[in-house]
Amino acid sequence: MSFLTLLDYASVLVFALTGALVASRAQLDVVGFAFVACLTAVGGGTVRDLLLDRHPVFWVDDPNFILLAAGAAGIVFVTAHLVESRMKWVIWLDSFALAVAVPAGTGAALAMGKPPVIVVLMGMATGSLGGLMRDVVCNEVPLVLKQGELYISCAMAGAITAVTAIWARLDTGPALLACGAVCWGLRAGSIAFGWHLPVYKSRPPRS
Amino acid sequence: MSFLTLLDYASVLVFALTGALVASRAQLDVVGFAFVACLTAVGGGTVRDLLLDRHPVFWVDDPNFILLAAGAAGIVFVTAHLVESRMKWVIWLDSFALAVAVPAGTGAALAMGKPPVIVVLMGMATGSLGGLMRDVVCNEVPLVLKQGELYISCAMAGAITAVTAIWARLDTGPALLACGAVCWGLRAGSIAFGWHLPVYKSRPPRS
Amino acid sequence: MSFLTLLDYASVLVFALTGALVASRAQLDVVGFAFVACLTAVGGGTVRDLLLDRHPVFWVDDPNFILLAAGAAGIVFVTAHLVESRMKWVIWLDSFALAVAVPAGTGAALAMGKPPVIVVLMGMATGSLGGLMRDVVCNEVPLVLKQGELYISCAMAGAITAVTAIWARLDTGPALLACGAVCWGLRAGSIAFGWHLPVYKSRPPRS
Repeated sequence: MSFLTLLDYASVLVFALTGALVASRAQLDVVGFAFVACLTAVGGGTVRDLLLDRHPVFWVDDPNFILLAAGAAGIVFVTAHLVESRMKWVIWLDSFALAVAVPAGTGAALAMGKPPVIVVLMGMATGSLGGLMRDVVCNEVPLVLKQGELYISCAMAGAITAVTAIWARLDTGPALLACGAVCWGLRAGSIAFGWHLPVYKSRPPRS
Repeated sequence: MSFLTLLDYASVLVFALTGALVASRAQLDVVGFAFVACLTAVGGGTVRDLLLDRHPVFWVDDPNFILLAAGAAGIVFVTAHLVESRMKWVIWLDSFALAVAVPAGTGAALAMGKPPVIVVLMGMATGSLGGLMRDVVCNEVPLVLKQGELYISCAMAGAITAVTAIWARLDTGPALLACGAVCWGLRAGSIAFGWHLPVYKSRPPRS
Repeated sequence: MSFLTLLDYASVLVFALTGALVASRAQLDVVGFAFVACLTAVGGGTVRDLLLDRHPVFWVDDPNFILLAAGAAGIVFVTAHLVESRMKWVIWLDSFALAVAVPAGTGAALAMGKPPVIVVLMGMATGSLGGLMRDVVCNEVPLVLKQGELYISCAMAGAITAVTAIWARLDTGPALLACGAVCWGLRAGSIAFGWHLPVYKSRPPRS
């Protein structure tokens, strides 16, 4: 199994866990858990594959991704009541999912020889769109757009790191590892220590 | 006209009616009715075709689908005021739409020789995503995720029925009929008699 | 640079400005501005390209579209506080974006020799879906579905104008100009003078 495939599996597993936890907050049944878990797990990578005309889409080619996501949802369904603070788990698991999904997306676009801007965008899309779909469908405030937090910025910084590393003639493996590390480090710093970029503030809050 | 095409037409017609009824609840004009009706009617099948790289997309190939959905929207626009309880109509019509869209999606994936997991997923996606788009765009609580009801479970059960029937060497026609029957039976039982799967319940409702 | 490419650039630029202004209402940081601006700017055209199987998608082929949208977002980030009434700017800029995006989508479908119904739909999708994504993601009431206003109707009228003009043997250039003019004229009339189509009104407002 290649490193890229491994990243895809890891990202599917961790995003599925976050999807199932959000489903538990919406009090769905076990099939609802599996539905939201699958949507979250494969959403970002699916958009990436459609945009790059990369067929068959990764999980259509290998249904194990779906079985993995559904299995993770089942485990969360029977164990989520053991978890004290589910939203905290969602946020932290989501940070790990981001840190594997961004290199997965970046790596796929690099392997297709796309120009740097597209590589960075594919990393950002793969990392953020599954979680965005999860939050829109379950009616949560999207993590990706939460005010005063770094999220999409972490994805961008990670993807730019990978592109820079490749440009500096590093191998793909280390470049993607650096990408994931930058991504997770910034996101964790934002969650734990409140790191953020200046936000736009209007004098009258809404006009 | 093949049986599969017939299923596509029926699903477009009935989903369009539900879309137009939801548009009436949002008090849109006649073009808004047609827009929501078309989105609902072709949304699920479009996602199916994009995921399976099945080009041209069914309604790009045959614009009659769009004319049918728009016509249905027009009829609803001038007659919806005659209907007593529109939400009840939406729910019941939607159950019929589900019961034709799931076999339509399942049949299309079967005809492409996809493996069972993908066939089941395509049935589920075709059946549920049009209605999900309708509800997200019109800001209704998505039927597909309503708590304590069977919906996506009905789609899954129906699609699994079709796959099992094919595996047992039934012809495609009867297999898809069985698929639709299981799908509609479960959904109708859920609406009329409250059938449901156990839902996840946390002690403190949100943590 | 062809006339069609020019339309694509203009539509990306103006839609990006509206996206960034909506991001300012959600008080995002500069990367959030760029994200919403890009989603709005390329969303409609991306759906058009995927539906028509037109690969590579226009901005994957030419990353300058993304740089343009991100640059526009940056300029809005540092200047939006100078603007008195941001929502008014969003609405008027959006009307110009619509009036270039609809001819852009119509022209692309015409160039592929699609039948009239599909050409009209592609114009409507390209014109409206980017703004719809912007509003759903940022949790605004979608402009496209605002009650008692012309929006999707303007897109339809413009696209029908183009198809009729081509059918009357006009050149593509003038046909697309007429399309944009009709589109903008109707939308501006709706904003400024309240032009609208009769909306559906139920006796009891929601049943």
